Amino acid sequence: MKIAIDAMGGDHAPQEIILGTNKALAEIQDLEVLIFGDEKKITPILTPNSRANIIHTEEVILGTDEPVRAVRRKKNASMVMMAQAVADGEASACVSAGNTGALMAAGLFIVGRIDGIQRPALAPTLPTVDGKGFVMLDLGANVDAKPDHLLQYAVMGSIYAEKVRGVKKPRVGLLNIGTEEKKGNDLTKEAYQLLSRQEGIHFVGNVESRDLLSGAADVVVTDGFTGNMVLKTIEGTALSVFSMLKSALTSSLKAKIGAGLLKSELYSLKDKMDYTEYGGAGLFGLKAPVIKAHGSSNANAFYNALKQAYTMAEADVPAKIAEAAGAAPSADK
Amino acid sequence: MKIAIDAMGGDHAPQEIILGTNKALAEIQDLEVLIFGDEKKITPILTPNSRANIIHTEEVILGTDEPVRAVRRKKNASMVMMAQAVADGEASACVSAGNTGALMAAGLFIVGRIDGIQRPALAPTLPTVDGKGFVMLDLGANVDAKPDHLLQYAVMGSIYAEKVRGVKKPRVGLLNIGTEEKKGNDLTKEAYQLLSRQEGIHFVGNVESRDLLSGAADVVVTDGFTGNMVLKTIEGTALSVFSMLKSALTSSLKAKIGAGLLKSELYSLKDKMDYTEYGGAGLFGLKAPVIKAHGSSNANAFYNALKQAYTMAEADVPAKIAEAAGAAPSADK
Repeated sequence: MKIAIDAMGGDHAPQEIILGTNKALAEIQDLEVLIFGDEKKITPILTPNSRANIIHTEEVILGTDEPVRAVRRKKNASMVMMAQAVADGEASACVSAGNTGALMAAGLFIVGRIDGIQRPALAPTLPTVDGKGFVMLDLGANVDAKPDHLLQYAVMGSIYAEKVRGVKKPRVGLLNIGTEEKKGNDLTKEAYQLLSRQEGIHFVGNVESRDLLSGAADVVVTDGFTGNMVLKTIEGTALSVFSMLKSALTSSLKAKIGAGLLKSELYSLKDKMDYTEYGGAGLFGLKAPVIKAHGSSNANAFYNALKQAYTMAEADVPAKIAEAAGAAPSADK
Repeated sequence: MKIAIDAMGGDHAPQEIILGTNKALAEIQDLEVLIFGDEKKITPILTPNSRANIIHTEEVILGTDEPVRAVRRKKNASMVMMAQAVADGEASACVSAGNTGALMAAGLFIVGRIDGIQRPALAPTLPTVDGKGFVMLDLGANVDAKPDHLLQYAVMGSIYAEKVRGVKKPRVGLLNIGTEEKKGNDLTKEAYQLLSRQEGIHFVGNVESRDLLSGAADVVVTDGFTGNMVLKTIEGTALSVFSMLKSALTSSLKAKIGAGLLKSELYSLKDKMDYTEYGGAGLFGLKAPVIKAHGSSNANAFYNALKQAYTMAEADVPAKIAEAAGAAPSADK
């Protein structure tokens, strides 16, 4: 299985990207990688391996670049060349920790959308208290959504949860401001009806954002604006609570002693909330797996994202989504 | 200053409602209260006071009642009679911990909307890491919103932050999925333009949900669907982190000893996240202050909500909103 890697994207590129790649190469025996980026910077970090090839390029898409324009103009950027390798059949999937908007544009324009899928969706796996996690989509690939799009998100998310995450009969929830059927805005009311009638998915109704982390569903669908808002709220709230916890734990000598005794427990708590443990965010609905690793990825986070790309390609998730898209009745038909 | 109280609303009514009222009566010397509810249940708890009058009624609006129908049909419900007392000029403001939808309906149909205000908004004060808090609206009085509504929310929120919370030149932020001017959906893009041009408010641009608890703005405006979603995400995330913290702290004997040393710090941390400390949620845009205390209010939470109603009435916030609504140019004009 050959995966294309953008070595130059992310806050700690190429250092952590390559360290994560080294780890994946050591652990997954049939993994081959095509590494796109600056050879002079990559070579000193990369553990020599016959399954790793560097394709040299010095052009890079920056975090500040306007996504669509950057993808169209910077033909030799590491991210663009990586996506092109997938489009050309040289690699089965790709991973980047770079500019999210640019990766979505590269996925859409270069890798291409699956026939019948109206909108690709950005889908990370988020942590739950029990450690099982859940897939949520769309987290911002599209700002707006129609009921029909949410239905396709549900189908794609279910396939991913089952084939890649190993969840049997994944529970699909519609993110809403109340659990009753008639709650919400026009979008959620119509989507509720479509989801209720859809065969092949296990729809459990509306779920509220307060119940997400306690594991209300295995797949949660929402429009990109709301999804992005909720994701950032979870991040911000968890960070704020941890920052308050940190000041509380250092507020007195007695507290410091107590905190010392709790050190390992507190670290494991922070790890539990660390969603890079679950891999990156998948861009679902494209002809091949495209994975967005977190911008601040360290080696381990990138390793997890790379493993996820491998598993998605192994399970041939895009083909299963294409099959379902062909079979699923949509509201337009 | 006379405030009307619904003694029968909330999970711990009338016990905690009356205990909170006792505390307010003891602390605020010119506070008078009209208490609506079951006299037999109220009297044993109420500290006898010449400034407290019970108006007996046995009818109650339940949490499960359909809000609008309940307000229309249950004319003798404690909540309805409470709102009626405000409409009749017998009280200057009112407070209930009961059914949120019913209180919004009672506010709209009985107390009435200020001329020129298109939509009343539900506005709680949420906690920040620095303990200052921020006002956020709308948190769900209206599912949808137009750009013009967000502009009025900004004006009402600014008046409240300044007159009741004592914030000078309150910073108004537009909740969005990015800080750049052109980010977001049609609603936020248009609202950004209106807010930028509005005189008399201090608009600081878009704010992201991840920065809310670190105090990105004093007043945050958003549509009711998004606001409700974000509020419940904050609640759910904080609760999940605390629940994980609790299991971490009891996972071993060493951890338990550490937790013992940290007891007071951990309690004060939980208090910091407790937004009932900031009072209830105000329904802004009505002819008199209507305050929704949290459904699970204990005596202290109800006391804070009651004090908030008193301060809003004292500062004559509705009159100041009416003045601004008359003066503020709106997109329709």
